[in-house]
Amino acid sequence: MRTDDFADTEAPTSATAAPAVDAPDVDAVRAVLDGRWAQARAAVRGLADEPLFRPVYGLDREQYRDHVWRQAQQLAAHGHIRVGFPEAHGGQGDVGSWVTMFETLAFTDLSLLVKAGVQWGLFGGAIQHLGTERHHRRYLDDVIALRLPGCFAMTETGHGSDVQALRTTATFDPATDEFVVHTPDAEARKDYIGNAARDGRLAVVFAQLVTGGENRGVHALLVPIRDADGAALPGVTIGDCGEKAGLQGVDNGRLTFDHVRIPRDNLLDRYAQVAADGTYTSSIENPNRRFFTMLGTLVQGRVSIAGAAGSATKTALTIAVRYAERRRQFNVPGTDDEVTLLDYRAHQRRLLPALATTYALHFAQATLVERLHAVLGGEDTRAQRELESRAAGLKAVATWHATATIQECREACGGAGYMAENRLPQLKADTDVFTTFEGDNTVLMQLVAKELLTDYREQFGNLDFSGTVRFVSEQVVETVVERTAARSLIQRLVDAVPGRDEDADLLDRGYQLKLLEFREKHMLDGAARRLRAASGSRGSASGSEGRAAFEAFNNVQDHLLAAARAHVDRVILEAFVAAIDDCADADVAALLDQVCHVHALSTIEANRAWFLEHDRLTPARSKAITATVNELCTSLRPHARLLVDAFGIPEPFLDAAILR
Amino acid sequence: MRTDDFADTEAPTSATAAPAVDAPDVDAVRAVLDGRWAQARAAVRGLADEPLFRPVYGLDREQYRDHVWRQAQQLAAHGHIRVGFPEAHGGQGDVGSWVTMFETLAFTDLSLLVKAGVQWGLFGGAIQHLGTERHHRRYLDDVIALRLPGCFAMTETGHGSDVQALRTTATFDPATDEFVVHTPDAEARKDYIGNAARDGRLAVVFAQLVTGGENRGVHALLVPIRDADGAALPGVTIGDCGEKAGLQGVDNGRLTFDHVRIPRDNLLDRYAQVAADGTYTSSIENPNRRFFTMLGTLVQGRVSIAGAAGSATKTALTIAVRYAERRRQFNVPGTDDEVTLLDYRAHQRRLLPALATTYALHFAQATLVERLHAVLGGEDTRAQRELESRAAGLKAVATWHATATIQECREACGGAGYMAENRLPQLKADTDVFTTFEGDNTVLMQLVAKELLTDYREQFGNLDFSGTVRFVSEQVVETVVERTAARSLIQRLVDAVPGRDEDADLLDRGYQLKLLEFREKHMLDGAARRLRAASGSRGSASGSEGRAAFEAFNNVQDHLLAAARAHVDRVILEAFVAAIDDCADADVAALLDQVCHVHALSTIEANRAWFLEHDRLTPARSKAITATVNELCTSLRPHARLLVDAFGIPEPFLDAAILR
Repeated sequence: MRTDDFADTEAPTSATAAPAVDAPDVDAVRAVLDGRWAQARAAVRGLADEPLFRPVYGLDREQYRDHVWRQAQQLAAHGHIRVGFPEAHGGQGDVGSWVTMFETLAFTDLSLLVKAGVQWGLFGGAIQHLGTERHHRRYLDDVIALRLPGCFAMTETGHGSDVQALRTTATFDPATDEFVVHTPDAEARKDYIGNAARDGRLAVVFAQLVTGGENRGVHALLVPIRDADGAALPGVTIGDCGEKAGLQGVDNGRLTFDHVRIPRDNLLDRYAQVAADGTYTSSIENPNRRFFTMLGTLVQGRVSIAGAAGSATKTALTIAVRYAERRRQFNVPGTDDEVTLLDYRAHQRRLLPALATTYALHFAQATLVERLHAVLGGEDTRAQRELESRAAGLKAVATWHATATIQECREACGGAGYMAENRLPQLKADTDVFTTFEGDNTVLMQLVAKELLTDYREQFGNLDFSGTVRFVSEQVVETVVERTAARSLIQRLVDAVPGRDEDADLLDRGYQLKLLEFREKHMLDGAARRLRAASGSRGSASGSEGRAAFEAFNNVQDHLLAAARAHVDRVILEAFVAAIDDCADADVAALLDQVCHVHALSTIEANRAWFLEHDRLTPARSKAITATVNELCTSLRPHARLLVDAFGIPEPFLDAAILR
Repeated sequence: MRTDDFADTEAPTSATAAPAVDAPDVDAVRAVLDGRWAQARAAVRGLADEPLFRPVYGLDREQYRDHVWRQAQQLAAHGHIRVGFPEAHGGQGDVGSWVTMFETLAFTDLSLLVKAGVQWGLFGGAIQHLGTERHHRRYLDDVIALRLPGCFAMTETGHGSDVQALRTTATFDPATDEFVVHTPDAEARKDYIGNAARDGRLAVVFAQLVTGGENRGVHALLVPIRDADGAALPGVTIGDCGEKAGLQGVDNGRLTFDHVRIPRDNLLDRYAQVAADGTYTSSIENPNRRFFTMLGTLVQGRVSIAGAAGSATKTALTIAVRYAERRRQFNVPGTDDEVTLLDYRAHQRRLLPALATTYALHFAQATLVERLHAVLGGEDTRAQRELESRAAGLKAVATWHATATIQECREACGGAGYMAENRLPQLKADTDVFTTFEGDNTVLMQLVAKELLTDYREQFGNLDFSGTVRFVSEQVVETVVERTAARSLIQRLVDAVPGRDEDADLLDRGYQLKLLEFREKHMLDGAARRLRAASGSRGSASGSEGRAAFEAFNNVQDHLLAAARAHVDRVILEAFVAAIDDCADADVAALLDQVCHVHALSTIEANRAWFLEHDRLTPARSKAITATVNELCTSLRPHARLLVDAFGIPEPFLDAAILR
């Protein structure tokens, strides 16, 4: 029996109709978006006054590398990047400012962004966080001033995601008090390393540390790779990755070490030390835990990339929305008036939910940066692990969103979108690797799932699958649906929802939150039970049992990844809701409320199959969601221009021919 | 009540378990794929012996244009492209061979492909199909031999999709027996024109034809743009589109005409003629119909692009699958064995359904080419319109599939996928505009919807929306679910399905077909009713009524586009089913049957929300589909390598560093 044949996606009942909203002032919206670290944003926006930082086209690879090098030097001269470094080195130790600055820098050339990320975020960050006082003293000032360009040499040709399996070795030789850094085979070659092909002089090299004949696991060491004249040092072979999809201004390269000797001092020894006689010591006893503590310093990079992905998405949406407001195609019947692209429902559907989600991600990012700022470098291990999980999840979702949205913007601008002068091609090509670097998104989402499923205080991170299976078989899932920001607000909204779904308004924020919360909890619950059932009474895995453990994990892999996504979706929506609640300007809040409806309902719409499968949406209600999103797009359309203008991207950075 | 908490996506009951399949011989599969025009494929594959046609990197734009020009000259010298031209000009008038050759050429450099498409497909095709005997005599031999490089100047800066709104004018001056071709304003500039920036000497220009003070609508005329030395002719201003996202070897440019005079003879006058006194005649009385008849010659280009998109997708999948079979990451627990990427479920999910759909599209393309070969140039208007609709739909779906799949392959290869030497970046960048050129995909899908909703024999194509509304309000939808290939076979399969869905096996092909058929019919039905209800008793639209008519259309636009997609999905599946039925080799057929299950069920899975909303899937059955696709991926995994090898892409064309 179908009673809904005729309805399909027609307008819903007036109960769920979206109210019209007065347009707030664009600067008021921008102020809300700019938030706590508005000053860092303003500083980077100021670069728009300098022609050096505006988009360029038509440079060949070496010219482009030169150009980015000059930009980076100018950036160093301005001192913007100093803010994240310790006060002893002229900085303010202000992580929030640093990450926000980096996010804003993504409005400029993305090759510059990545070059800066490698030099100051990864290379400088590793010295800062994995090194000790003497490393800081010796290197940081030069790193900050770009007098010492460097590399972060972790990834190898054979291993990227599985960092524990890296094959480069650093063997201690007590006879000379040196480490011997060596590339044993082609798979162990360091690959895709930014700053390596042309500029880098010193590299943070991740290698298996061997002392006293024993492998101590992966550690980071400082290895000089070029002399002052730029020539490769003896034993170091440097290759060039050559042409890439994008980011042509970054000199990615390959490093091979042939028994390269470095002083013992060059071990970045904050978490582990090697004595002159080769004795190995560490304050962290568990090798796994030690490894993940070191890796934890990567969290800042992941947060930064999530923010940068957001900025690139904003640039693309600004271009596409402004073009869609201007571009006309096909007449209104019986008239000579041509319809603007943005008046077409299909075009609204392409751009407006993506715009709304970009807003949601902006606030989720702001919340994450607050947390990073509060937690990083502190002693709260639990908070640090949560931060890492949040960063992993948001990095993955934000970069996937960037890839999909920039692609959609390209297509929505038609042939013009394919021309370099309209910026979308470069935005697409440059950001395309964001889903891969700083952690492959699929691997990151797996990490999120694992964190959700384990009481990681007890069973410190272990990436192998039998581990996951064992964890889950041993304990109840308890930490799920832990509240994000504004716990009490979210709880109040959820609690106020009528008991029966059918009685809830689709535009009831509590109802939307409740749906996402239900999905996350149910998915994790199901994944946990399946893993437990699969693991049965099996003990520690080895050999054929190892294979069985893998199969058990593998059969649930898609389920785990979906659960992680459900978690991140909830976290994002809660951040958006909390930000609106914090918003003092009523007009801005009202508009953001509309935007949040588009985000929340289009997220639920995209996952409506799941809700239908789990009897959480009726067919009629599911269709009503689609109709409501359509209606919301219509009412948001007049505000589209304001919403992109509020991103505050300086015009010189936009500079697309189709907007002139 | 939920009875399925525990099940989620676990394995289905054994009733739907996929049987294991013996691996057939790869050459046997290739022979089936190669099909009727295997010879054309073999000829192009032979180009792999010549270094000139292998992938190159690192050329700057002008070097690349030179390189592509040399490739095109060599192609002309070989005479491959002659096959599509009339026998009088050394060809065989064999459209099927031409299009198949073009499809295979997409295994080589895609800039060469597009350059060839412009020169011989669009430019040569327009002279052949829109011109008459004297044009053929004067130009075709030179066009074929590439002695006369030319352009197809349709799109303008202001109008692309809405060709009837082009603004360039060609005004007949009886005093001199000439047309005056003119660009009245910036919007009327010809834009993105291939071959224009560097090589083109003659252009087919689409312009509003004015004779006797009356506008006769858009017609095509031959306008010389460069002299033999390559200098722009008087009155012609030529610009360069410069850097693009990809296809850097194609010299796209811009043309502006300042009262350029051309002889009356230069009107391509197959469908309309202008006499010396300015008298306008045409065998097609209805101006709209005349316009769409001329535009109908574009159909070959759309079919060609659909095929080329398929080839590019195959190249990307071949690289990604072979890499995923070789690349290992993370150990099997308790062992030193690292797991290959393709053994992970998430990785199988990324690649194998896309691979299956690539097979489906291959057979849909083969069916379309058969139809093109049979219909093109014939007198059957109805068949021609159907062909155009099929071509539009398949072009859109195949190019969207290419965009999504190549992107997925890039990401699935991680950092390596971002390196130019591994070919994926260029494949992505070059194909990205396929969704735009030869008809924007969204506009094409709208065309498909309109064709499905109208009895176009009576009410010949009218792109305006009031037209659409009126059509639908006047008549019953009758031509839906018209059978594609192998009508009786499909009907037999559908008829054999048990009356109750719950009794049907998920691997019952008839059941799968029935679901897609139901979706198409129901969506079209609903769209028609909504349009009729909206149009009410309104007469011909004008002014404010025009706006209302637009709103009525616009409210249904997403529904119409979804209906068109449902239609194309059905057509594709039916083509695949028919191809398997035609397959004489039992082992090949058994494997293709498995591939078809993955395609069909993953298509239904992607649309399961709709089936749930329309009570055509129960929640439990919907979940079982997901579980079955997972299981099918597992059983297809051992055949993945064979399936990509069967595409028959010569190794020199693959040439990715990660496969060496």
